[in-house]
Amino acid sequence: MDFAEMDREELKQRLEILNRTYENIKAENLKLDMSRGKPCKEQLELSMEMLNYPGSSDKCITPSGTDVRNYGILDGIPEAKELFSRMLEVDPDEIIIGGNSSLSMMYDTVSRAMTFGVYGSTVPWSKLPRVKFLCPSPGYDRHFAITELFGVEMITIDMKKDGPDMDTVERLVAEDDSIKGIWCTPKYSNPDGITYSDEVVDRLANMHTAAKDFRIFWDNAYVVHHLTDNHDRLKNILEACKKAGNPDRVFIFASTSKITFPGAGVAMMAASRNNVEQIKKLLGLRTIGPDKLNQLRHVMFLKDMNGIENHMKKHAAIIKPKFDMVLNILETELGDKNIARWSRPNGGYFISFYTMPGCASEVVKMAKEAGVKFTPAGATYPYGKDPNDSNIRIAPTLPPAHELKKAMELLTVCVQIVSAKKILGC
Amino acid sequence: MDFAEMDREELKQRLEILNRTYENIKAENLKLDMSRGKPCKEQLELSMEMLNYPGSSDKCITPSGTDVRNYGILDGIPEAKELFSRMLEVDPDEIIIGGNSSLSMMYDTVSRAMTFGVYGSTVPWSKLPRVKFLCPSPGYDRHFAITELFGVEMITIDMKKDGPDMDTVERLVAEDDSIKGIWCTPKYSNPDGITYSDEVVDRLANMHTAAKDFRIFWDNAYVVHHLTDNHDRLKNILEACKKAGNPDRVFIFASTSKITFPGAGVAMMAASRNNVEQIKKLLGLRTIGPDKLNQLRHVMFLKDMNGIENHMKKHAAIIKPKFDMVLNILETELGDKNIARWSRPNGGYFISFYTMPGCASEVVKMAKEAGVKFTPAGATYPYGKDPNDSNIRIAPTLPPAHELKKAMELLTVCVQIVSAKKILGC
Repeated sequence: MDFAEMDREELKQRLEILNRTYENIKAENLKLDMSRGKPCKEQLELSMEMLNYPGSSDKCITPSGTDVRNYGILDGIPEAKELFSRMLEVDPDEIIIGGNSSLSMMYDTVSRAMTFGVYGSTVPWSKLPRVKFLCPSPGYDRHFAITELFGVEMITIDMKKDGPDMDTVERLVAEDDSIKGIWCTPKYSNPDGITYSDEVVDRLANMHTAAKDFRIFWDNAYVVHHLTDNHDRLKNILEACKKAGNPDRVFIFASTSKITFPGAGVAMMAASRNNVEQIKKLLGLRTIGPDKLNQLRHVMFLKDMNGIENHMKKHAAIIKPKFDMVLNILETELGDKNIARWSRPNGGYFISFYTMPGCASEVVKMAKEAGVKFTPAGATYPYGKDPNDSNIRIAPTLPPAHELKKAMELLTVCVQIVSAKKILGC
Repeated sequence: MDFAEMDREELKQRLEILNRTYENIKAENLKLDMSRGKPCKEQLELSMEMLNYPGSSDKCITPSGTDVRNYGILDGIPEAKELFSRMLEVDPDEIIIGGNSSLSMMYDTVSRAMTFGVYGSTVPWSKLPRVKFLCPSPGYDRHFAITELFGVEMITIDMKKDGPDMDTVERLVAEDDSIKGIWCTPKYSNPDGITYSDEVVDRLANMHTAAKDFRIFWDNAYVVHHLTDNHDRLKNILEACKKAGNPDRVFIFASTSKITFPGAGVAMMAASRNNVEQIKKLLGLRTIGPDKLNQLRHVMFLKDMNGIENHMKKHAAIIKPKFDMVLNILETELGDKNIARWSRPNGGYFISFYTMPGCASEVVKMAKEAGVKFTPAGATYPYGKDPNDSNIRIAPTLPPAHELKKAMELLTVCVQIVSAKKILGC
């Protein structure tokens, strides 16, 4: 029943029952972690076969003739560039294959921009009086942490149903040349699970930016991470930028962390040839090359786009039931109460949950006191500050089903308690 | 016979014969690369067993309880920290295990110092009017390339038989607070093969530096890379710094690139706890963690210091004959001519060869025209400028014996030609 339509006495009685339920759960001394988008053990098992590759010395020589065990090849073996350029829908000479972390590639890209500028910069960004980034929010806390570390001023941009609020984005980048970038997780966004519409992609590619060296940081972390067969499609941003006459505008990032192994995957970035050349020049001073053996393992295991897609279906078969369980519990416990809303994503790693304004921190705190850790409220916003104190990120993949059920039941109880108190003004 | 003691006519006749030999070699259309310190194929075979590890899912869980396949552990699995801290003679909490490249860890350390400062800095180095590094030379070109990229002014320091010219080092660091660092390859140095004496280590640890946040960049690349059983010993720099009351003065770097696989090894850095804590704080914004699966592979394969030492003996058995061949050819062809000198290292990857002043570039050029590529003359000095134009770095490990023989014979011919011309003034 809609909490707003209950009379005070009814709501108070409900609150008493909820408080008793909460105390009962608390007495169970739970110790559950719902805070991280980590694959579960069953997902890790899916890629064990990969560790058998390359298998023997002769297999360590790639078809293109490189011994992956030795030094050399700055930007990845051609076979890995071929495979992953298909995944990102770019040309093989528009991709750089790196180590095991796309986050590192993003950090390094920001770091290089600050110290040396990007292709087309007249001055390193750190030499400017100020640098600002647009941060569609809720978003990925680690993106915001990088920009904050480098002293970049972050401007929160609302997320709509089909991507960032483009009216605001267009207005700001047109008038302020200190705005140098925007963070985007364009597919199955973290945490909202939104995929940017074609219109949003086109507007990002075409918009006039006062800064000539403006960059879109396009973290395509969930590019093939579908939960259903009827999955979202994301328009090709690099192609859109080229068509718009802004070919150098975008840096694309991705990894196999949630395809093969989070701790031992392969990261990559893609961009125009101009960007790639500028980056490779600097990269060559940092390293002789990435771990090519692991790149070869990936190529031999995943083989081609068909291989990747089939592999991702196995992931979906494991985690989709967990997403469904979360959504069912939310629907059952909160569906008729008008105190919360949440996303129903077609892919990615999160369900984004919104309490009534001003309730999220208290809910997370109560859950924690009962032994269930959620991502801190606010973490999904620049500087850790959710202006509405409303968003909670739910990560359903890691816990076993029985733990997930327990954690979600606790969450729904906490949400009801905090909401009821809010309505009652106590 | 000593070239200087030959009369002009004699020397001219010799030159004619040498020129004919050179043309004959040139006619063979060689295509050999002697420029890079790369392990040869036989060395790569030594570590193939490592690729069988971990082997199965249950083995992916470390004794300390971490699933190396998943996210987490910023500074390396405890088992890798334990093993490699013994190799570097530091405590396990004084080490950070990284990805596959120690060069990247050095680059990142310089980059962080420029942008954020090091532990104890009052201001990031890039905010200072100028930053200088001391560069004992000949040294490693990639060290110098990093400092040059970041706009650091490099001061060439002579290498003596037991390390850098410490009188000059001590005088400069005492009087100039813009000198923030010194590059050192203290064991089997690149390219001279020198191991720093205890006295040099102590003087580096104890010297008064005008800059309070001065750092020794201690690239211990060849820490266990002995060629003989009776090998060099290097004094423990971190311990010496602690004793001297300068515990935070040194950053130590190393990797398994030339222990296991150059393309898929494990890199590491070590320093005082204060330094390690400051670095980890920043590192945590760049990555969730390094490739732990590869770290576990290394631990399971190398096991302990005994394992590492036995493994390195197998490397020595392969490459020592190559060093001996180079030294024998040099002795046979040039030993009595008084036109060159060279190192006879107990370890490492190079033989350092010195022509008469003003001859090295011409020798390298002639060799290149006859199809044999050596490291460009000057590369071993800051800004690529050898003040004496004398040093040539010989890398004997990669080529098969017959190629190595050919390349060295060519080199000795070129050295004689250029020297004879120099003496004759033609």
